[in-house]
Amino acid sequence: MLNNIPKELSPELVKCLMEMGHGDEILLADGNYPALTNNDRVIRADGLGVPTLLEGILKLMPLDTYSDYQAILMETVEGDPRPDIWDTYKKDIGDAFPKYNIKTIERQNFYKYSKGCFAIIQTGETALYGNLILKKGVVVPKD
Amino acid sequence: MLNNIPKELSPELVKCLMEMGHGDEILLADGNYPALTNNDRVIRADGLGVPTLLEGILKLMPLDTYSDYQAILMETVEGDPRPDIWDTYKKDIGDAFPKYNIKTIERQNFYKYSKGCFAIIQTGETALYGNLILKKGVVVPKD
Amino acid sequence: MLNNIPKELSPELVKCLMEMGHGDEILLADGNYPALTNNDRVIRADGLGVPTLLEGILKLMPLDTYSDYQAILMETVEGDPRPDIWDTYKKDIGDAFPKYNIKTIERQNFYKYSKGCFAIIQTGETALYGNLILKKGVVVPKD
Amino acid sequence: MLNNIPKELSPELVKCLMEMGHGDEILLADGNYPALTNNDRVIRADGLGVPTLLEGILKLMPLDTYSDYQAILMETVEGDPRPDIWDTYKKDIGDAFPKYNIKTIERQNFYKYSKGCFAIIQTGETALYGNLILKKGVVVPKD
Amino acid sequence: MLNNIPKELSPELVKCLMEMGHGDEILLADGNYPALTNNDRVIRADGLGVPTLLEGILKLMPLDTYSDYQAILMETVEGDPRPDIWDTYKKDIGDAFPKYNIKTIERQNFYKYSKGCFAIIQTGETALYGNLILKKGVVVPKD
Amino acid sequence: MLNNIPKELSPELVKCLMEMGHGDEILLADGNYPALTNNDRVIRADGLGVPTLLEGILKLMPLDTYSDYQAILMETVEGDPRPDIWDTYKKDIGDAFPKYNIKTIERQNFYKYSKGCFAIIQTGETALYGNLILKKGVVVPKD
Amino acid sequence: MLNNIPKELSPELVKCLMEMGHGDEILLADGNYPALTNNDRVIRADGLGVPTLLEGILKLMPLDTYSDYQAILMETVEGDPRPDIWDTYKKDIGDAFPKYNIKTIERQNFYKYSKGCFAIIQTGETALYGNLILKKGVVVPKD
Amino acid sequence: MLNNIPKELSPELVKCLMEMGHGDEILLADGNYPALTNNDRVIRADGLGVPTLLEGILKLMPLDTYSDYQAILMETVEGDPRPDIWDTYKKDIGDAFPKYNIKTIERQNFYKYSKGCFAIIQTGETALYGNLILKKGVVVPKD
Amino acid sequence: MLNNIPKELSPELVKCLMEMGHGDEILLADGNYPALTNNDRVIRADGLGVPTLLEGILKLMPLDTYSDYQAILMETVEGDPRPDIWDTYKKDIGDAFPKYNIKTIERQNFYKYSKGCFAIIQTGETALYGNLILKKGVVVPKD
Amino acid sequence: MLNNIPKELSPELVKCLMEMGHGDEILLADGNYPALTNNDRVIRADGLGVPTLLEGILKLMPLDTYSDYQAILMETVEGDPRPDIWDTYKKDIGDAFPKYNIKTIERQNFYKYSKGCFAIIQTGETALYGNLILKKGVVVPKD
Repeated sequence: MLNNIPKELSPELVKCLMEMGHGDEILLADGNYPALTNNDRVIRADGLGVPTLLEGILKLMPLDTYSDYQAILMETVEGDPRPDIWDTYKKDIGDAFPKYNIKTIERQNFYKYSKGCFAIIQTGETALYGNLILKKGVVVPKD
Repeated sequence: MLNNIPKELSPELVKCLMEMGHGDEILLADGNYPALTNNDRVIRADGLGVPTLLEGILKLMPLDTYSDYQAILMETVEGDPRPDIWDTYKKDIGDAFPKYNIKTIERQNFYKYSKGCFAIIQTGETALYGNLILKKGVVVPKD
Repeated sequence: MLNNIPKELSPELVKCLMEMGHGDEILLADGNYPALTNNDRVIRADGLGVPTLLEGILKLMPLDTYSDYQAILMETVEGDPRPDIWDTYKKDIGDAFPKYNIKTIERQNFYKYSKGCFAIIQTGETALYGNLILKKGVVVPKD
Repeated sequence: MLNNIPKELSPELVKCLMEMGHGDEILLADGNYPALTNNDRVIRADGLGVPTLLEGILKLMPLDTYSDYQAILMETVEGDPRPDIWDTYKKDIGDAFPKYNIKTIERQNFYKYSKGCFAIIQTGETALYGNLILKKGVVVPKD
Repeated sequence: MLNNIPKELSPELVKCLMEMGHGDEILLADGNYPALTNNDRVIRADGLGVPTLLEGILKLMPLDTYSDYQAILMETVEGDPRPDIWDTYKKDIGDAFPKYNIKTIERQNFYKYSKGCFAIIQTGETALYGNLILKKGVVVPKD
Repeated sequence: MLNNIPKELSPELVKCLMEMGHGDEILLADGNYPALTNNDRVIRADGLGVPTLLEGILKLMPLDTYSDYQAILMETVEGDPRPDIWDTYKKDIGDAFPKYNIKTIERQNFYKYSKGCFAIIQTGETALYGNLILKKGVVVPKD
Repeated sequence: MLNNIPKELSPELVKCLMEMGHGDEILLADGNYPALTNNDRVIRADGLGVPTLLEGILKLMPLDTYSDYQAILMETVEGDPRPDIWDTYKKDIGDAFPKYNIKTIERQNFYKYSKGCFAIIQTGETALYGNLILKKGVVVPKD
Repeated sequence: MLNNIPKELSPELVKCLMEMGHGDEILLADGNYPALTNNDRVIRADGLGVPTLLEGILKLMPLDTYSDYQAILMETVEGDPRPDIWDTYKKDIGDAFPKYNIKTIERQNFYKYSKGCFAIIQTGETALYGNLILKKGVVVPKD
Repeated sequence: MLNNIPKELSPELVKCLMEMGHGDEILLADGNYPALTNNDRVIRADGLGVPTLLEGILKLMPLDTYSDYQAILMETVEGDPRPDIWDTYKKDIGDAFPKYNIKTIERQNFYKYSKGCFAIIQTGETALYGNLILKKGVVVPKD
Repeated sequence: MLNNIPKELSPELVKCLMEMGHGDEILLADGNYPALTNNDRVIRADGLGVPTLLEGILKLMPLDTYSDYQAILMETVEGDPRPDIWDTYKKDIGDAFPKYNIKTIERQNFYKYSKGCFAIIQTGETALYGNLILKKGVVVPKD
């Protein structure tokens, strides 16, 4: 653990977030997501929900202001209600970046899309439609 | 994730618990414990407290009934109050094994002792004196 | 060994089952199956039959209720009798998931199909047509 | 699998038995034995009992006729009955090598002794006092 | 070395033969064959001729009775005499499997074909046209 | 790079600092220090001076308030002037922890002592007597 | 550190520059460049700007006089001012090779192009459009 | 070093030459050749010229008498004089194999062609057009 | 295979012999020798006798003329006849180095002594007392 | 190759020299030196003499002015003439560091001493008593 780094983020995860560059994307996947099937770089965060990790990551990682979207969700199937957890995501993202735009991608295409992510975090999230992709922005050091 | 396996336990941790034998010991260390300095096999569980992991582990791993102790705590320094978290530990252990006995070991000796553990789990626990060693008992398969 | 985990399942196999996600498939192959030729992740279980492993796996791993099949068998060649072992498989699967549907795939295509499985377990099964693919479902933790 | 090689023996185990030389010893440990704590070379054989493996191994590996013992058991604690499984061991060993002699070693010393074995096979044996060490003899090829 | 396993077969080679499944093929290549160029799994057997290894392998590995060929040779160029070593091969194969059929493949295609073999054994054979591919059959354990 | 993490600290170094526990020590060594000779974990920071890294590290890592020293310097040889760079170190450490105490260790003993450090950072510092050991304190997460 | 080798260049970087051949290209990327996404060989130089590394590299590595360009920059988007840092680059390159020619490549194509580079150095540069590709020339030893 | 093996050939190089088969090719590249870019197996021979290595290799490795060429050179650009070093190569090759034929390949195609070589030796040769590919022949042991 | 290198010596063995220096010793062990128990560097030569390998090695490796012994045998137990194979060894060694001296070491000490050898070759030799240690001499290149 | 770095020094060797610190020692061993027996880090330089490498190394690496010796030779046995190659060494070292002092160490102790060196370069030197240890000094960057 270190000061100023949320304690829920593992050393391996922080190293990964530091190595990502502008435009790289990371998927916070739920506990049932086929992560190893879709990416070679899988970081486990068993027992933690996506909101906990999202909040921690947003304290360190800026979102991409140059892109026309900052995050991606998996599209709900017709008839399914709007997932409650999305409100949590949107509040957290909105706090960090008020003018955010969030895309959705259809389920099967979402799986394929995640093959191109920089990494997948396998969380213990159990909410439906809880998968969330974040696009890293430019870090401007303050010194 | 799998049925009957507490979701807070990572695949690597469950594999480790399965590979331990009768009498092997595992340390659930707090977030500030010098884990890598004292053991080659360190499993991270950032963001999770010891009670969460303890509860999960006790659902799978029996404690050693052949030994005169089932768990070990780090001795408090004179004058320090009895740590509240110990009550949680004792309740959980007592639920699993009513006639338990818990030893304590002085701080510096506890560090040395942990070099001989099978593994150390580096949790995110922040309570003082939160380190806990469990001694694995004999598994009697039911089939 | 651990409580609640069938003792026939190796630590490596349990870790593998935990890492699989919703929709990932695993092949329980017989002792003559060309496993290494068709998959990079091969877990050995010499001396054990498929039914033993199947029973153990079904205690931990739910089958996929969202899919139009839960398991796959290798199609028998015309004239071959219906393999007795299939009845065992169907009973075990039916106990775990009554409304199951089992597909068959023609031999050469079955080999190719198994290249896309998450893993292959090389068992010691000697029955003809004993190969069985299971599709993992969604795990809903009970806590 | 191959002809003339008992199908319960894994490729890794057969390779290990071939690499052992005259006088090297291998421990067939029960499912609760602390194997990884006592040896760097551990071969898993989950779900198989020691008698199954013993029978298979004796078909391939001669015992040491130059030594004053061919096998070692863990000494029973005073008052414990003579373990039934020992009769099975003795029958199998006697079939292979009629004039055998079997030593026993006290429990704690047995653990230490196993650190010097060539390898430990972690079986799924659940019988008490089921651990058995075999001493490899000289192989005299017949060609 | 072990009883019942021909002493010319190395531990690595026996492990490889055990891991092969029904229909997998292995090339016994002569000492001048470009083995590493054509396969990732190369097992060396310097100083041994193909007949020695062939005889040893046939004691352990059944040939494929379901296939319309059991072995493959490299086609001789027009005008070249029939290689004497083929008679040795045919005798040995015939002893193990009387109704055998042996295919030939043209030189350049043979090289390409060997890329798909399970493994290549680089022997010390010096006879012309000494390369031989064997197709593994189904092992039926006798217990 | 990430927000709130000084950009001079590499991903590998931040991971290392996160993995250190209470009481673990890290050496910021100058460019001529025999680092690989004295520690297995060496992190390079070519081209950066110790003050730059020190400032960055102190933003993340607390010093040990339970110890009777927070840092260690290499003792100057009699007659050598007091190194100017020490004033920089003391100012930076004093800003982070006003009641600090800094030990010195004689040159040859300092080399030996550094074998016990958690890691050595090989900086590009060229000042004499520029080596500095920091002792990590307890991290108290703010959430 | 060594004489005649600029101290900002790490041992790993110098080894890399030595292993490059005539015509190989290396990218000095800014701190936000998605380096790991675009190349397998990434060398970190956190905390150092591109001009520092450029100056050091040009003392050791000749540029390619046989090519119609010696360096490549990322094209600015219409409306963006000419980046000041380019003047520094051009002065340094011009000092080393007066008749230089520098190409530009459009942003998205630049990312793709960098996949073919020999390596990417991930610097801590924060200037916009600070990425610079150098093409190695022929080294003519002086002895 | 060993008797009968030229001392300029490293153990790694001799092992490589032994592992090559009939028809495999090896490139003796000059010191500026982009070796790692064009092959995964690169053997360094810094400080040695191609003629030294060529002479050593020809003492051990026969050239291919079945092929219509035994060696390949990089075609000179129109107007460039015939490289002197070619005479050395031809003399050495001619001594070993009088009826040799040497092909040339145009520069860019030569680079691509070298991707298919068994290995590249990165020598310290500084002569222009000094790159030389040798095609291994059949070794006929004398015993 | 290569010219001038006996074809029974594997590439790995020749590389090993080249890497040995003056005074380093290598053990040619019989097929029952506990090689892996006594050395980390074991090279297999299944199916080959010690005389075959000895003859090949002596064509490449000089024996140590500075030492008071050139080879070591395992002492026979009192009453055992003088092993015939020793005559073969002595003839081969005598041909290479007429004034040779061969030491013997008692069995248990021989095992311990072999831990200090550079490497052990595990041959397929079946003669009693067939183990032979050779001491490498100084190679004097002829150029 | 790079400008200002002698072309006889391999990338691996230059990286090694850069990683050495003040007081670390490197042995330039002759072709018959038992290098792997005495050190884990061995860098090969087959075909090159010690003087060639010495000259190259001294262009990059300063010798230790704080020590009472800068280099070490192996003591000649009584009666042996003073080795000519020592004059070459002394001239080269003297050119780099006029007030040098060179120690000698008796043969068997020299072998033991070399176990503590940072690395051993295995050259192709054939002169007697050609082994030379260099002690690295402090590098003072010029910028």
